[in-house]
Amino acid sequence: MQLTQENYISPDEAEAAFYAAFSHCDKKAMGEVWAEDDVVCIHPGSNVIVGYDAVMRSWTNIFSNAGLPGIAVNVIKRIHDVTLAVHLVEEVIATGENAYVSVLATNVYRKYEHGWFMVGHHSAVVQAATESHTLQ
Amino acid sequence: MQLTQENYISPDEAEAAFYAAFSHCDKKAMGEVWAEDDVVCIHPGSNVIVGYDAVMRSWTNIFSNAGLPGIAVNVIKRIHDVTLAVHLVEEVIATGENAYVSVLATNVYRKYEHGWFMVGHHSAVVQAATESHTLQ
Repeated sequence: MQLTQENYISPDEAEAAFYAAFSHCDKKAMGEVWAEDDVVCIHPGSNVIVGYDAVMRSWTNIFSNAGLPGIAVNVIKRIHDVTLAVHLVEEVIATGENAYVSVLATNVYRKYEHGWFMVGHHSAVVQAATESHTLQ
Repeated sequence: MQLTQENYISPDEAEAAFYAAFSHCDKKAMGEVWAEDDVVCIHPGSNVIVGYDAVMRSWTNIFSNAGLPGIAVNVIKRIHDVTLAVHLVEEVIATGENAYVSVLATNVYRKYEHGWFMVGHHSAVVQAATESHTLQ
């Protein structure tokens, strides 16, 4: 496991670092948030990406395609155990002047010897606001 | 917490019950899998649904709109702690003759006094197979 300048002492600290890295398109900071493990990441609409190196490549792609995204984060639910934590988060991402997209993310954190790191990120765009759902 | 005939002794047992209920459009069985708590559920493209009763209404809607869906399940990743477990699962759902949709789900389970129950389900349709991702 990496020894970083920041050894996040809680899932909330790791999450704050994740969204700071995301909103600043900061590859180095993003690399420090994730566990160097068989982590899993799903971007909106994407297939699952497994493993630290592949996940980092995906963020590099995103950062190279995007301007600095304005992101407002609203934590809907936190579930914590001793070494595992799950946060359900709403990300409101600015996509243009007065244009926003609402994304829901399930973020998973594990506690390692040196602190808490992200091990899973599953995000999906909200497309409907009603309670009437079908299978797709 | 409910006392059911089935008190799932592991996250895997609860998950098997969840997909059995899903594939059979069985409201009663679905109701037994979820914790009677402030659970959270996100169907593909939907906003977050919070609370047992609202989540059950959403499954009732789905079951009333669907025929019996053929679902093949492939567990990609299991992360377990003492009282909390996260499974990343691929659901391949038949949508017609020789037509399928690939859905990725992050399923969250908690251990209560009477066994393991589902407390979170976040599912999203896979729309792209490449590693080139953007923010939406």
